[in-house]
Amino acid sequence: MKLYEVLADELMQAITSGQLRAGDRLPSVREASRSRGVSPSTVFEAYYLLEARGLIEARPRSGYFVSRAVAQHAEPEASVPEAEELHVEVSELVFQVLGLARNRAMVPLGSAFPSPTLFPLPKLALALGKAARQLDPWRTVEDLSPGSMDLRRQIGLRYLGAGCKVDAEEVVITNGAMEALNLCLEAVTRPGDLVAIESPTFYGALQALERHGLKAVEVATNPRTGMDLASLAAVLERHPVKACWLMPNFQNPLGSLMPDSAKQALVALLAEHAVPLIEDDVYGELYFGQRPRPAKAWDKAGLVLHCSSFSKALAPGFRVGWAAAGRFAREVSRRKLMSSLATPVPLQEGLSEYLQRGGYDRHLRLLRHTLIQQRQLVLRAIAKYFPAGTRVTQPEGGYFIWVEFPPQLDALELHRLALSHDISIAPGHLFSADRRFRHHVRINFGHPDNTRTAAALKTVGQIADALMR
Amino acid sequence: MKLYEVLADELMQAITSGQLRAGDRLPSVREASRSRGVSPSTVFEAYYLLEARGLIEARPRSGYFVSRAVAQHAEPEASVPEAEELHVEVSELVFQVLGLARNRAMVPLGSAFPSPTLFPLPKLALALGKAARQLDPWRTVEDLSPGSMDLRRQIGLRYLGAGCKVDAEEVVITNGAMEALNLCLEAVTRPGDLVAIESPTFYGALQALERHGLKAVEVATNPRTGMDLASLAAVLERHPVKACWLMPNFQNPLGSLMPDSAKQALVALLAEHAVPLIEDDVYGELYFGQRPRPAKAWDKAGLVLHCSSFSKALAPGFRVGWAAAGRFAREVSRRKLMSSLATPVPLQEGLSEYLQRGGYDRHLRLLRHTLIQQRQLVLRAIAKYFPAGTRVTQPEGGYFIWVEFPPQLDALELHRLALSHDISIAPGHLFSADRRFRHHVRINFGHPDNTRTAAALKTVGQIADALMR
Repeated sequence: MKLYEVLADELMQAITSGQLRAGDRLPSVREASRSRGVSPSTVFEAYYLLEARGLIEARPRSGYFVSRAVAQHAEPEASVPEAEELHVEVSELVFQVLGLARNRAMVPLGSAFPSPTLFPLPKLALALGKAARQLDPWRTVEDLSPGSMDLRRQIGLRYLGAGCKVDAEEVVITNGAMEALNLCLEAVTRPGDLVAIESPTFYGALQALERHGLKAVEVATNPRTGMDLASLAAVLERHPVKACWLMPNFQNPLGSLMPDSAKQALVALLAEHAVPLIEDDVYGELYFGQRPRPAKAWDKAGLVLHCSSFSKALAPGFRVGWAAAGRFAREVSRRKLMSSLATPVPLQEGLSEYLQRGGYDRHLRLLRHTLIQQRQLVLRAIAKYFPAGTRVTQPEGGYFIWVEFPPQLDALELHRLALSHDISIAPGHLFSADRRFRHHVRINFGHPDNTRTAAALKTVGQIADALMR
Repeated sequence: MKLYEVLADELMQAITSGQLRAGDRLPSVREASRSRGVSPSTVFEAYYLLEARGLIEARPRSGYFVSRAVAQHAEPEASVPEAEELHVEVSELVFQVLGLARNRAMVPLGSAFPSPTLFPLPKLALALGKAARQLDPWRTVEDLSPGSMDLRRQIGLRYLGAGCKVDAEEVVITNGAMEALNLCLEAVTRPGDLVAIESPTFYGALQALERHGLKAVEVATNPRTGMDLASLAAVLERHPVKACWLMPNFQNPLGSLMPDSAKQALVALLAEHAVPLIEDDVYGELYFGQRPRPAKAWDKAGLVLHCSSFSKALAPGFRVGWAAAGRFAREVSRRKLMSSLATPVPLQEGLSEYLQRGGYDRHLRLLRHTLIQQRQLVLRAIAKYFPAGTRVTQPEGGYFIWVEFPPQLDALELHRLALSHDISIAPGHLFSADRRFRHHVRINFGHPDNTRTAAALKTVGQIADALMR
């Protein structure tokens, strides 16, 4: 652990224990540097990390203060699923709820996507146009799966930046992460098999299990640190698990982040049982502190199938994703050929062109900055307008907050009433095969329209109040 | 039947009966017009149709002559499969054979694609660049499956042009026809079900059955008119067929074309048994005579799932296809959302932009003209260089010729030896679950490099001769 992380942890303890309270001013950088005997830059980094975590906030010309949002809401409870083998049938509800969220008149608190206005679409259009004009026609044949070698090399470089060595040869380009995840699931399971997932989990995982005729066993999670490994170990002992699908970085819907040590232990535990890990890492680039490593960084056995895409971080609607599927790479590539032959060549070339130009990291810094600000705004509005007893996560990345209302609230009813005010929310029912999260909702904070968002959260709070009376 | 079709048919009879022989000169347009009492334009149309069918050829300033290629090769035998329920496992061989065909140094007689140089890629690049620059960011959310309404309307117009009424609402945009076919298959079957296919059939259909754990029953075909309906009726009586997958227009690998009356009877027969028809129509626009109607044109029960794409006719490598899935449209749209969420939005918008500009039909005329010429070239080379007793199809569209060598030739061996001369061919083994087509190969004539192609066919002929000795 680095010095600034030690300092940040001490301060975090002081805040969560109540020693420092909402609105309290932190020592100035100079004071802290002197009193702790560390350099000012170490203090800066610690404060930056705490700010990214939403624990403190800078006020112009006044210094750093403990965030109001933080102290006013406890974290949601850790989940305690039944650890039974579940038949999955959730799609009907997912389609009902999400079909409605596409209308652009709706305040999209229930959306799965960040605002499409946050992305460098004009620059991408230029790169795409250039790549298309210069396209060697034969690439349309040669870039069939596994895909363009240029793009796969660029992706290999991004892995290096995230502290993970992945050979470009191992990467298969897909139609977004969703196809990658589906192909990986196909490669390591047969219909009827059992797959371990998080509780709550991304409904897309449930839909994929349903589509492939697979059963689910849900594993307990902590809302800050993700899947509980003791629970996973117990599940692996008791059930014939054939694969594990999870999202260690900024989990959807929790926003949880597994610590490095947990990722390492996870990979080791699964390797011991020879169970492949399908790692969904689509939010990995949207960190507010430091780039978290994927669990794949600790993979020695080739059992981790890491899936991601450019859809959430750079190019929405391009549907370009990939799988780095370890020892299953060849099988995934073949299944890609069998299911959709190839990923569109002009888009692969266009993204490769954009990445070579080098504006991606600058864009990502801007995007993260926007998301951090939006998170604070949304957390503050929730603190102000949602009923007493509401619990929320404070994610260190991504754009989802998981809200746990008091148990008497029915999130489906809240969803229906919010819709009549042109506000979408994602009810917790979507995120579990046994629909156990009935008083929970997922809130998307990736749509910067501050007055509209705050007003919508106020309305949701009022509806929730009324429902609980 | 129109007047010129009647005239064309009479001449065809005269040619196939031997009354007119290879090299014979046909009456001039003026003579024929006078002697038959029809207008010169009727004669022109009849000659054009016969030329498109490869029966006659124009020689500059000399008139029309009966083609040499025609008279010198008989058609392949009609297929007589066992009509057993077959477990499908063909992928390994397909990947082995086709992996090699991507190398651009190879003469691609075994390729599945026409030459990528035959397409208006520069114009598509302009349309794509423009659409990307003008992209409304919110379309990336709204154009999720079923896809862009603009593009679906354009596709609806193409259907109208092919004599088939399809509502844009019924169209689901997919990642190429391959995804469309896979999603349709998923929508109408469950693992273990039995699917009726043609014998020989496109290996992609076999791979799709294998991927979904389905069984195949192969139905007899005629090399000119496609699936034999009496055989299909017998199969439907005897086996619990859950779906039928076929390619009425310019079948891969035969190049066969079902007559309208057969399509109508096919649709009626399947409707009687309540069996959905998955219609693969990716070559429909590549006709040499008249645009053939899809079987879907006769669909009253909503049981025909018609799949096609722009990959073979306009935009290789774009991977934009679609399904018009009749009463299964909603299910296919949902499965698309579950498997890859959406088809890339910039490509949908780019193609829509291109289609609105209206150069598509001009491009298609050029493309067809090139393919007609190439077919003649390849048929002539086969007549000249392939062993006596070789039989070939003379397709009226697409870019495949099906070659039946004398029975003692092993096509896999031919394939291996041709490879050592940097020539790919597609051995018949790929086109059947029971690998019954062992002395057959599929030849691609969609690569206009005339000296190289003719030389390669000469080499293949020499190897075949040597193998049969």
